[in-house]
Amino acid sequence: MQGCGNDYLYFDCFAQSVTDPAGLARRFSDRHFGVGSDGVILILPSEVADARMRIFNADGSEGKMCGNGVRCVGKYLYDSGRCKKTALRIETGSGIKTLQLEVAGGVARRATVGMGPPDLRPAAVPVLLQGERVVNAPVKIGGQRWQITCVSMGNPHCVVFVDCVDELDLTVLGPLFAGSGLFPEGINAEFVQPLGERAIKMRVYERGSGETLACGTGACAAAVAAIAAGRCRREEEIAVSLPGGQLQVRWGERECYLSGPAETVFCGQLEW
Amino acid sequence: MQGCGNDYLYFDCFAQSVTDPAGLARRFSDRHFGVGSDGVILILPSEVADARMRIFNADGSEGKMCGNGVRCVGKYLYDSGRCKKTALRIETGSGIKTLQLEVAGGVARRATVGMGPPDLRPAAVPVLLQGERVVNAPVKIGGQRWQITCVSMGNPHCVVFVDCVDELDLTVLGPLFAGSGLFPEGINAEFVQPLGERAIKMRVYERGSGETLACGTGACAAAVAAIAAGRCRREEEIAVSLPGGQLQVRWGERECYLSGPAETVFCGQLEW
Repeated sequence: MQGCGNDYLYFDCFAQSVTDPAGLARRFSDRHFGVGSDGVILILPSEVADARMRIFNADGSEGKMCGNGVRCVGKYLYDSGRCKKTALRIETGSGIKTLQLEVAGGVARRATVGMGPPDLRPAAVPVLLQGERVVNAPVKIGGQRWQITCVSMGNPHCVVFVDCVDELDLTVLGPLFAGSGLFPEGINAEFVQPLGERAIKMRVYERGSGETLACGTGACAAAVAAIAAGRCRREEEIAVSLPGGQLQVRWGERECYLSGPAETVFCGQLEW
Repeated sequence: MQGCGNDYLYFDCFAQSVTDPAGLARRFSDRHFGVGSDGVILILPSEVADARMRIFNADGSEGKMCGNGVRCVGKYLYDSGRCKKTALRIETGSGIKTLQLEVAGGVARRATVGMGPPDLRPAAVPVLLQGERVVNAPVKIGGQRWQITCVSMGNPHCVVFVDCVDELDLTVLGPLFAGSGLFPEGINAEFVQPLGERAIKMRVYERGSGETLACGTGACAAAVAAIAAGRCRREEEIAVSLPGGQLQVRWGERECYLSGPAETVFCGQLEW
């Protein structure tokens, strides 16, 4: 399944057990010698929610949560009949996430996920700047002046507003931001082009992955930053256009809600 | 299935028909939104051989033959029971190819394919140089002096011997060779490091694809060039080490024989 081009191999662990998920991810995420994916997600029974997800990156390392992946977990639970309801609770490495599915033609097409509250305090991100919040803060990175807005969505984000995202060379800019010394735990860098009060276009450079087609927490961080910097309205749902497709973000009273597609590409069997 | 990392989606068209293989290849070869592959190969009934293969690249264009793909076609025919014999004849866009399978544990693991005769005449490649054959011919490409050996394996190849293939930047060299004006139909460029009389190490820049993990006709052309240039012995089978794995080439009396692995990664269903 994939959400905005963020594609994982999903294993239904209600009926089978996977003994070495890290090895499985390394073996089968390879895009030429394996099935090809961003990693592996196990869908497991949970004692505290409708199901539990564990996520393993292509290098075998375990992640905590993935906004694009958790939507697909919800879709699978609904479509397979394992959990035939549209309001779901999924246990993740970042706590229990609530999902609201949109169903059409008997299958789940889209989902909205409660992504938790954003935190703009510099120590929470963390970013080594003073003040209550880092919003449009002037910094010098790679010999150039930038205004950055920093947001924690459980992971660190640095948002920069630019006139045109298409022209940027993220293979150069991403490492410059990551290596600036401002971010002790590394950084996900979002380059955001405002498109009015309710829409932004963005590209994202993810810590450890480089530029990706889409990033759920990055979309949330970008929308929150656009609101905090006075470029978008908090009352509105914000349409976030990414290279892999479109997501919607709403910054609610308590937390951010991320909506987007979830699609099955194929199902299969493999021996290992 | 994959052979040396050259991976295709194979469709058994004995039992089903595929109406738009070009569209299917474009839709499902995408490595994030589709299944992910170098393209699609249809395995069809044939009136003149055991089976027929049609190959579609990821962009939907139809190819003629693929040395790594045809081995997997043979493996499928054997493993599925459609054609339970180890000597097979496969109809391709480049004529009928003979296959010899190596079976272990009840499944085909490797195959040897008759790849046809090499042709070293410049007009056959084609390459715009004089003489009977282009072997170690001095040329100037990109402001640098090279010695090139040109071979047609049905498609055009230019082989260059170098001391170390690992150091080369093929993203620069490939386009320089292709754009040199020497090759009216474009070129596949092989950079070959001799490892004695029976082994070579190579990297290949394919016309239209850029650098790839392996190229069957390229491996044959490189082995033929190594023999023609006096660097390897024709009597021997030549081990060809590529980024995607190892192939063996034998330049026989009439034609080149290519041996290598064929592996099933997974099988699956998709709706379209």
